[in-house]
Amino acid sequence: MSSNYRNFRNSVPWLILFLEAVFIVLFYFLFSEDGVPRSLISYPAFQDVNHMVIFGFGFFLTFQKRYGFSSTGFNLLIVVLGVQCSMLVEGFLVFLLQMPNEDGLKRITKAAVSVTAVVISTGAVLGKTNPVQLIVMTVVEIIVFHVSRWINNVFLEVPNDISMMHVHLFGAYFGLAVSSCFSEPSPRSEKNASTPKSDLLSMLGTLFLWVFWPSFNSVLAMNKRRAIYNTYFALAVSAVTAFVLSILTTKDGKFRMTHIHSAVLAGGVTVGYAAHSIEHPWIAMILGLLASVITILGSYCLQRCLNPPLKLHDSSGVHFTFGLPAVLGALAEAVLLVIKNWTDLPSLGYLVMFHVGAFCVTISIALITGFITGLILNLKLFKTIPVSKYFEDQFYWEVSF
Amino acid sequence: MSSNYRNFRNSVPWLILFLEAVFIVLFYFLFSEDGVPRSLISYPAFQDVNHMVIFGFGFFLTFQKRYGFSSTGFNLLIVVLGVQCSMLVEGFLVFLLQMPNEDGLKRITKAAVSVTAVVISTGAVLGKTNPVQLIVMTVVEIIVFHVSRWINNVFLEVPNDISMMHVHLFGAYFGLAVSSCFSEPSPRSEKNASTPKSDLLSMLGTLFLWVFWPSFNSVLAMNKRRAIYNTYFALAVSAVTAFVLSILTTKDGKFRMTHIHSAVLAGGVTVGYAAHSIEHPWIAMILGLLASVITILGSYCLQRCLNPPLKLHDSSGVHFTFGLPAVLGALAEAVLLVIKNWTDLPSLGYLVMFHVGAFCVTISIALITGFITGLILNLKLFKTIPVSKYFEDQFYWEVSF
Amino acid sequence: MSSNYRNFRNSVPWLILFLEAVFIVLFYFLFSEDGVPRSLISYPAFQDVNHMVIFGFGFFLTFQKRYGFSSTGFNLLIVVLGVQCSMLVEGFLVFLLQMPNEDGLKRITKAAVSVTAVVISTGAVLGKTNPVQLIVMTVVEIIVFHVSRWINNVFLEVPNDISMMHVHLFGAYFGLAVSSCFSEPSPRSEKNASTPKSDLLSMLGTLFLWVFWPSFNSVLAMNKRRAIYNTYFALAVSAVTAFVLSILTTKDGKFRMTHIHSAVLAGGVTVGYAAHSIEHPWIAMILGLLASVITILGSYCLQRCLNPPLKLHDSSGVHFTFGLPAVLGALAEAVLLVIKNWTDLPSLGYLVMFHVGAFCVTISIALITGFITGLILNLKLFKTIPVSKYFEDQFYWEVSF
Repeated sequence: MSSNYRNFRNSVPWLILFLEAVFIVLFYFLFSEDGVPRSLISYPAFQDVNHMVIFGFGFFLTFQKRYGFSSTGFNLLIVVLGVQCSMLVEGFLVFLLQMPNEDGLKRITKAAVSVTAVVISTGAVLGKTNPVQLIVMTVVEIIVFHVSRWINNVFLEVPNDISMMHVHLFGAYFGLAVSSCFSEPSPRSEKNASTPKSDLLSMLGTLFLWVFWPSFNSVLAMNKRRAIYNTYFALAVSAVTAFVLSILTTKDGKFRMTHIHSAVLAGGVTVGYAAHSIEHPWIAMILGLLASVITILGSYCLQRCLNPPLKLHDSSGVHFTFGLPAVLGALAEAVLLVIKNWTDLPSLGYLVMFHVGAFCVTISIALITGFITGLILNLKLFKTIPVSKYFEDQFYWEVSF
Repeated sequence: MSSNYRNFRNSVPWLILFLEAVFIVLFYFLFSEDGVPRSLISYPAFQDVNHMVIFGFGFFLTFQKRYGFSSTGFNLLIVVLGVQCSMLVEGFLVFLLQMPNEDGLKRITKAAVSVTAVVISTGAVLGKTNPVQLIVMTVVEIIVFHVSRWINNVFLEVPNDISMMHVHLFGAYFGLAVSSCFSEPSPRSEKNASTPKSDLLSMLGTLFLWVFWPSFNSVLAMNKRRAIYNTYFALAVSAVTAFVLSILTTKDGKFRMTHIHSAVLAGGVTVGYAAHSIEHPWIAMILGLLASVITILGSYCLQRCLNPPLKLHDSSGVHFTFGLPAVLGALAEAVLLVIKNWTDLPSLGYLVMFHVGAFCVTISIALITGFITGLILNLKLFKTIPVSKYFEDQFYWEVSF
Repeated sequence: MSSNYRNFRNSVPWLILFLEAVFIVLFYFLFSEDGVPRSLISYPAFQDVNHMVIFGFGFFLTFQKRYGFSSTGFNLLIVVLGVQCSMLVEGFLVFLLQMPNEDGLKRITKAAVSVTAVVISTGAVLGKTNPVQLIVMTVVEIIVFHVSRWINNVFLEVPNDISMMHVHLFGAYFGLAVSSCFSEPSPRSEKNASTPKSDLLSMLGTLFLWVFWPSFNSVLAMNKRRAIYNTYFALAVSAVTAFVLSILTTKDGKFRMTHIHSAVLAGGVTVGYAAHSIEHPWIAMILGLLASVITILGSYCLQRCLNPPLKLHDSSGVHFTFGLPAVLGALAEAVLLVIKNWTDLPSLGYLVMFHVGAFCVTISIALITGFITGLILNLKLFKTIPVSKYFEDQFYWEVSF
């Protein structure tokens, strides 16, 4: 074994066991089902979201040719830890603030939606972090996300279901800030590449996410039918636009699979904030079109102009897949608010101010805490991986060829 | 670059953008949700159909070893364009004929069911058409299918949900007619073959379709429970029969994967017309058995006797997978009508005549318009692909090995 | 062709056709839908279970590198035959015992749950049985399982939905008993191994099973919400524990994919009996933890200590994946009964006695009939496969490389 070899037997199991023991003890104290009224969340709706985070994101991230086991496996580990952690943090806030209890299914659903932030952040550091770092990141990010939501709810009067939709924005920028603290892989690295087979598996995950995205946007919304309808159209148009722009931006006028992977989902992310309130499908369609444009132009510009000077390496492009479309979505919601309330100027000022405030608070908290988390994760304590071992399943898994 | 190389940068993006712009403008004028009563379509039912067309058919068609990206990618493109187009055509008919409006979820569901016709037709020309041709075919086929349904509804008094079930019949024969205008690939071509890996991915899509087929047959039906029940039994028996006949018709007495792929679905196609009205499961079971028999015998006979003289090349066997079982289904429904109404001879005559009429109208429109579409698609304008580049992802996609 | 070559053309088709003909005739006599009240089973719940047995288990078993076609294909064949057979046996018992009829959807759902026993047993003999043997095993096992359930229901007063949850216990030990009659493959056999690709496909199936397991445990339960909730937590904690123990038990301190495959599901199996009655999630969590521990320790001990002296070869580890967690679940339910009823000693005695009785009856019937079935399947009549041809798709399928 070379000196580069890190054995995680002395750290990973005990960290996870400690966390799980804490979780079980806290569940013992925090949760009981007595006298809680039934929520309106249906089981199939929860199931769809569960399917997305476990299966959809698990396979969405399998595009690296030697990192399939870690992508799907660690994704499962992070999601199950994150969901438990999220339920506890939420339960703690409910307990502290004397809010009414919610029933079990609604609690798990909200936790599964929150954990999407972590899954997105993982995408930014995919292949560069070891399991210890991932677990620490999960716990920190879930706590910070709930604090950020709580600030939004209490001080900026953002409704609960809208503050939840900040999950893409928060996840993407937290992940990028963490990623900025990790060293870049060598650009000549052969491992950070995909094969046609791994791209096809990733397409499988992408199509899953695409199909279930209307469920994601509608699960906590008031007007579910409208949220479903608008999300579907935004997704449809962004899928169409993805093909257009892919052929326009590549050298030979061919389609590029990574463009399709990221841009087909952009519409769903963008329309997330406003899906329940958009009244005409054509508005959702235009948002989907813009989302796709910003994603593919973003992927073109960021990878050339922004990332190299910042020494930022964004493994699966979460910046343009989830970050930019979420920014666009927040902007679009502000514009829609202005259009809807322009007759009532005083209340409009308030509304827009609060809305922009919520956006700024979320993104700043994500960037600052993400950067701090990144610095902490790079301490020697966490046995950082040498750059030469990035994107390698064999480093963590028994792999037989 | 050889002279064979076609660059699609000057055609595909502008065609798609033009279409999408037209769609958005028409959506602006045609759709509003005001005062429309809620339909009985449930979101999970729509989700199942959506899953089938995007994911199920996407992977069902990945059996060619070098055509996986195009199969899943172009399928997504076609479905999202087709669904929008179908909603508009339907909206246009509703507007022209002053029919009552339906709510958004029902509209998308009907559009997703209609688009199955296009997806099936695509199967017949898989690997032989470029994206421009596929998109033109999609738009033409959707319009013609709606016209054919409208003729059935208005002149032949076929109920709406039955006329929708002509989707397999229409899709298969339209696709075959289009395919007859394309040149055949060389029989020695290595590219038009499958590998065990691609066959397994295609099995994944097939199993998805198999599982969700009861949703497809029941989503628009009146008696949903009965449609589900009968479709399940028809599928079960056709799966069983597929194994029997595969071992009987192959040279060594082994199973052939392509037999399984096509025959397990045959029962669902056949029972589509009558699923809501069959009263005893054994009738559905016998239909499933016959469907599987006709599929595998069809695959044996068509590929030897019918296709070579007609110079017809049916890439994924849609003739025997969807065409013949749909013919059988139409025949079976006529027989069931006769059995049910034999005491009332005068009305029986009418019923059967209209039923046979609807079948003949649908299949003739499909064949004639399909053939014309095929001729148009072979104009130089559309940059037809040379036969040597059939079944090649690399022709359209950036592929790294 | 070597003398080892078995041609199944003279046996498989006629056996299947005979069975299917019998099934159709019996369906004709046994089933009608008239005047049956609608059950509370929803279609999406049935769909989830259907998805699990067809798709989830189909891909869960594809880990062997040359046995993917057979794993998914034969799984489909067995499930569709098993479901029909199970409905008939149940219909026969209903007819004999003059029990009230149930509606079609409930009948199919119960049949799909029962057939899980067969699918699990198949896992124990995966790659070692030919289709004839599998089909005979399916029919015998379904009949015996229903007899065992009937004994539990009538003599031991076990409620219907609990006796159904014996499906894992029954399936695992029946399969092991059958497997003990087959000769072991050579330990140096290269075919009985996995590749990273096949492991990833198997992970796909595992994640499907994981996501849908709450549906499985709740579909027949009275208190569905609670069953869903508890199953989710048990699964979550067993997924977490799987990672912990995998790293602790492997030589280099790495994760092993097969550990993850089996242990993440253990919690769902264990909590199956009690999911509807556990009042606090922390209890389900502890059960999930124990289930995962017993699975991974079981996999370690059984493969070293128990299997070699017994000359037992358990292809996909059903003993520790389904058998041991089910034993733990039965034990846990007994303990929970004691805790809940300890104030009422006389009735407690009865309850526990009946409970332990049901467990012993089920496991003994499974072991005895499984062993007899194994002996019968090894008769020359069934054309047993030579050990050198184990785990080979090419033996049954036309495979092109």
